[in-house]
Amino acid sequence: MTHEIGIGMLGYAFMGKAHTRAFREIAALDSPLRPRLVAIAGRTEDAVAAVADRYGYERWTTDWHDIVTDPAIGLFDNGGPNSLHAEPTIAAAEAGKHVLCEKPLGRDADESYEIWQRVAATGVRHLCGFNYRFVPAVRLAREMIDAGELGEIRHFRGRYLQDWGDDPSLDTWRFQPDEAGSGALGDLGTHVVDLARFLVGEILTVSGLVRTFVKGRRVDDALEGAVEFENGTVGTIEATRLALGRRNAFQWEINGSKASLAFDMERLNELQVFRTDRDRARGFKTVLVSETDHPFLHFWWPPGHIVGWGETFVHEIHHLLRAIAGDTDVAPYGATFEDGYRAAEVCDAIVRSSASGNRVTVAYR
Amino acid sequence: MTHEIGIGMLGYAFMGKAHTRAFREIAALDSPLRPRLVAIAGRTEDAVAAVADRYGYERWTTDWHDIVTDPAIGLFDNGGPNSLHAEPTIAAAEAGKHVLCEKPLGRDADESYEIWQRVAATGVRHLCGFNYRFVPAVRLAREMIDAGELGEIRHFRGRYLQDWGDDPSLDTWRFQPDEAGSGALGDLGTHVVDLARFLVGEILTVSGLVRTFVKGRRVDDALEGAVEFENGTVGTIEATRLALGRRNAFQWEINGSKASLAFDMERLNELQVFRTDRDRARGFKTVLVSETDHPFLHFWWPPGHIVGWGETFVHEIHHLLRAIAGDTDVAPYGATFEDGYRAAEVCDAIVRSSASGNRVTVAYR
Amino acid sequence: MTHEIGIGMLGYAFMGKAHTRAFREIAALDSPLRPRLVAIAGRTEDAVAAVADRYGYERWTTDWHDIVTDPAIGLFDNGGPNSLHAEPTIAAAEAGKHVLCEKPLGRDADESYEIWQRVAATGVRHLCGFNYRFVPAVRLAREMIDAGELGEIRHFRGRYLQDWGDDPSLDTWRFQPDEAGSGALGDLGTHVVDLARFLVGEILTVSGLVRTFVKGRRVDDALEGAVEFENGTVGTIEATRLALGRRNAFQWEINGSKASLAFDMERLNELQVFRTDRDRARGFKTVLVSETDHPFLHFWWPPGHIVGWGETFVHEIHHLLRAIAGDTDVAPYGATFEDGYRAAEVCDAIVRSSASGNRVTVAYR
Amino acid sequence: MTHEIGIGMLGYAFMGKAHTRAFREIAALDSPLRPRLVAIAGRTEDAVAAVADRYGYERWTTDWHDIVTDPAIGLFDNGGPNSLHAEPTIAAAEAGKHVLCEKPLGRDADESYEIWQRVAATGVRHLCGFNYRFVPAVRLAREMIDAGELGEIRHFRGRYLQDWGDDPSLDTWRFQPDEAGSGALGDLGTHVVDLARFLVGEILTVSGLVRTFVKGRRVDDALEGAVEFENGTVGTIEATRLALGRRNAFQWEINGSKASLAFDMERLNELQVFRTDRDRARGFKTVLVSETDHPFLHFWWPPGHIVGWGETFVHEIHHLLRAIAGDTDVAPYGATFEDGYRAAEVCDAIVRSSASGNRVTVAYR
Repeated sequence: MTHEIGIGMLGYAFMGKAHTRAFREIAALDSPLRPRLVAIAGRTEDAVAAVADRYGYERWTTDWHDIVTDPAIGLFDNGGPNSLHAEPTIAAAEAGKHVLCEKPLGRDADESYEIWQRVAATGVRHLCGFNYRFVPAVRLAREMIDAGELGEIRHFRGRYLQDWGDDPSLDTWRFQPDEAGSGALGDLGTHVVDLARFLVGEILTVSGLVRTFVKGRRVDDALEGAVEFENGTVGTIEATRLALGRRNAFQWEINGSKASLAFDMERLNELQVFRTDRDRARGFKTVLVSETDHPFLHFWWPPGHIVGWGETFVHEIHHLLRAIAGDTDVAPYGATFEDGYRAAEVCDAIVRSSASGNRVTVAYR
Repeated sequence: MTHEIGIGMLGYAFMGKAHTRAFREIAALDSPLRPRLVAIAGRTEDAVAAVADRYGYERWTTDWHDIVTDPAIGLFDNGGPNSLHAEPTIAAAEAGKHVLCEKPLGRDADESYEIWQRVAATGVRHLCGFNYRFVPAVRLAREMIDAGELGEIRHFRGRYLQDWGDDPSLDTWRFQPDEAGSGALGDLGTHVVDLARFLVGEILTVSGLVRTFVKGRRVDDALEGAVEFENGTVGTIEATRLALGRRNAFQWEINGSKASLAFDMERLNELQVFRTDRDRARGFKTVLVSETDHPFLHFWWPPGHIVGWGETFVHEIHHLLRAIAGDTDVAPYGATFEDGYRAAEVCDAIVRSSASGNRVTVAYR
Repeated sequence: MTHEIGIGMLGYAFMGKAHTRAFREIAALDSPLRPRLVAIAGRTEDAVAAVADRYGYERWTTDWHDIVTDPAIGLFDNGGPNSLHAEPTIAAAEAGKHVLCEKPLGRDADESYEIWQRVAATGVRHLCGFNYRFVPAVRLAREMIDAGELGEIRHFRGRYLQDWGDDPSLDTWRFQPDEAGSGALGDLGTHVVDLARFLVGEILTVSGLVRTFVKGRRVDDALEGAVEFENGTVGTIEATRLALGRRNAFQWEINGSKASLAFDMERLNELQVFRTDRDRARGFKTVLVSETDHPFLHFWWPPGHIVGWGETFVHEIHHLLRAIAGDTDVAPYGATFEDGYRAAEVCDAIVRSSASGNRVTVAYR
Repeated sequence: MTHEIGIGMLGYAFMGKAHTRAFREIAALDSPLRPRLVAIAGRTEDAVAAVADRYGYERWTTDWHDIVTDPAIGLFDNGGPNSLHAEPTIAAAEAGKHVLCEKPLGRDADESYEIWQRVAATGVRHLCGFNYRFVPAVRLAREMIDAGELGEIRHFRGRYLQDWGDDPSLDTWRFQPDEAGSGALGDLGTHVVDLARFLVGEILTVSGLVRTFVKGRRVDDALEGAVEFENGTVGTIEATRLALGRRNAFQWEINGSKASLAFDMERLNELQVFRTDRDRARGFKTVLVSETDHPFLHFWWPPGHIVGWGETFVHEIHHLLRAIAGDTDVAPYGATFEDGYRAAEVCDAIVRSSASGNRVTVAYR
């Protein structure tokens, strides 16, 4: 018999919706723990009440303190603004709840380190919401790399390109330094850094630029960087909200001595694979990652039927529930809070490099 | 306040799962009727019981007769084998239930016509599960055509290519003539015919071939056809289960006097659009159909975040529920049973053309 | 020491230019015979004189009779309108010249048969200008098929799509039935038929349509067909001058039991290859056909540097010169006049099928 | 009547062949000066003699001094190793010959500056062989940018990826520091820098890395950089000979406030164009750059027929001949020796940044 786990959700907007949908999906999948939507917290009473009703949360609140200590809740999911990541997440962990916190973990490396350390000390399970680890094509890439199929890695080039930022009137929390911590850096750049670490390894140095294009904006619009990894890989990283025509183009490419891989989030179900086989016909394969022997794809459809972006959260949360149930660990396939902290440390290094003009060695604490 | 509608589901395999998932999703979307999973019927007791438990049906049965008359059920959804389409669907409609029947409607035009006529006589709402009308890119194509953006249409070329059929040991109901009616023709060819009709118009003549490659197989593996439409368009249609490397490649292209469109289901979120604008830079646009002003996409994510194949059923069933609630009609955006019948009539014409060697004029009753 | 071969060219427009450029290129390549541009014939005195001067022909004439008997000429190249294919080509062959005639060989099967028979009787070398056999990617495809890499072939789908025909004022010889014989059929459809035969084998039956869209036009704009091959392959063929946005899209795909291939002339240097290898990462490879071990590519650049459409004529004519020198035969890699005739026989069958509404068995004489 | 210009060529390998082929082509095109192949110089007697015979040079020599003063020569074309760029080019210019020198102009900024200054002082025409300015798609991009179609440019990302360098046994002059000056930097990186300057503007700062992967190799294999332009654009540049599967992938993308452009040399005939038009169907257009109103394409074929890599030299040299004839200037569409020097200055800055770890401001002399 499947046990239940009570869910307490903070946030009802973009991430709140995506996560809640995932919890509902998982309830019908083969999972060691069945999510029960206990409570949701949000700032605006009418909105949070409406969302609670629509998605079937048993109760709602405008005060997150109400949910971090609720005995019915076993997993606290923090999908709130970045400025609300630290305090509720730490409080929930210290109350014995397992915790999922959206990325970036904190607004900078200091805050991220604090969250990680405080939460790790409690012994609960913790996952930082780098959901792109749970794209089937990304997971396949990781497994190929782990199996040595790429040989020695020489290059990583990763860029996360969006185009919605070119509007001076935008003023959500994502553009407030106090609430967001940074702009494209924390929102998009952290994803690039996390997948660079997930797929290639630790970043050793960064030489970077951070840039704000839109007048009056108080957070960055873009970052550019040249990077070295501990294992000798070199490459570039980039993130921007002003790449016109690129709606959600998280693109990366890895070149190894035996194979190369390339990916674009706008074609989430595809992985480009080049191998040095002996085939006279050499070239990149466009792999439609949809075979049901894939760790995530047995959940879904027969081969050839694609999954959507929303499913990445199903895969992520399902993984976390398995870890909570003791069937696996969050790491290495999921990002722990340590990973959240490490990504922040790299992002801080980019900021320092931008300010000083020097190549900066990433120093993890 | 949203009213409930009781759902009775026949079938728990591929389509049963896809539809049930959609009902569960719709319960959290803005819909005039909220689905309530009342009962599910299936042949194998253990399996149907397990599925009922997992998805949250209130009860299950191995006898579909139990659900077609249940007063708690307002919508009967038939996801069973083709041989089980006619009798339960007609019975449900005659018991006053609205009905959704998977495609192909019947195993041939005669049976499809009978289903349509009997159901239409009852006055209930009926939708035939041509879910590809509910792919966002397909709907956008239809709206562009309706708005005259293509001008006079000259060509339609549609092909549905899969590759899983090249295995003589396959013996599910899909390979039994009694249960399936036909092979690639009813399974894949009907989709091509339906979108041809949805996007271009009625087919006037077909000159076709039906072919079985696998020894001992008793249904067709492939069909090829040259077609004329009533409006003068000419083109080709094709369906096969033996196109190696094409996992689910439902590809079509339409050439008009002012614009052309092209699509491939393996890139479900993209529409290729060519326009005769005055731009010096002329070419097909790769449109990522993800803007939230699209009729389906307000349900989901910000632009650039793709939806999966499973979401087509959410769009389809949501449309049907709106029709049941009186907010819209099933036609023209959804396929009615009349559309199911008409597709069958075209498929029968292909079979007759293959047998006789003659071009056959499609004669609707 | 390399021997010279005198070239007599008929036609100075599109094909005259493309062939002449090829002769000039070959003069600097490793070839058993070095082309010497002896004479060019054309209808309009000023134009032919200017072209002769520009390209370095030793003399020019407005009367083709002057060149078919010139002792300095060893190869007669007919790039004139279709109505000028038969008489000069036969006359040249009967005067002992080797002959290259542009496609379509004749304006119909009867004329094509006559040309073939008369020329074959002379014993000279003859090549029909189906230059797409000499696209590197097409040749690679042929070699893979010859080596059994595709296994048993099930499907061929070929279409040649252009879009320049949608203009009622067009009135070159290509739109005059007397001069051209047909429209898209002879111009584009013959290419599809030739590559179908080159890659898959003889066509057994056709069920087709021929259509003229543009009012007042006296040749066809498009053809559509379902086809069967002698070896059991089935598929579709299509050609049109009204596929908006497709500038020169000669696209084909072949599905075998072990591999599939796909091609688009607008990406002339690429071949799509799918193999049933055991690679977990399955998909079509985009092969940039540019490795220098390819039969044509040693002429050109290091790998990765693409060749243009014009180079197909260099490959074709170089092949013919090797055949004239006795180093190889025109067949099977080049199209002989027999191939030109056979393509015409299939095209005639399409016309008859269109008129009668019946599937027509291709009967070669 | 067209005047002749005598050509003296240094080098008979890759570039010698590509340029000679272009001269031969131009002789049959509409050009104010008709190239006459007077003499070719090369190190190895047998090889240079064979090449001279094949391509039709009137004479050959193993001593380049013979050709830089030959009165019959009007244009000296230097396709020799980098270490042979300076002395012969300067000597030829000082003897009054117009000069074309392959890239990189010199082995570093100092040598490049010396070449530029010495040659500029003579008053002859000079062009540095950045042939990718003469790719039709690149020229179209430049014209669109000049016309303001991109608005304010925000991002440039350029990378030149090849994969042939992963072989320790390679030991041509390209791997000798004395002869080549650098590795991927001068060979590939200069192309990226030149197109960055050609399309976006002057580079202000670079933060870069230079890396050698192959043991024992004495030149660089790869470079990575973050860059700022004088106009505020930021981005990344990269070049490598070890990107497995990328044969000749010179890829760049530019994002402006009104449009974005993207390009890949492996699809040389295509430009990706995104515009912020009001079309509901938004996306990048795949433009097949083949319309005959393009400045280069009137030389070639009807629309839809692609040109090869080799044709870039035809366009480049034709442009230079027009400049020599006084019909145009080398700049801005062609690269002058000043452009050759400026690219070298940026490359030197990358090397200095790599060594020091500091962001380096490019200082032109």
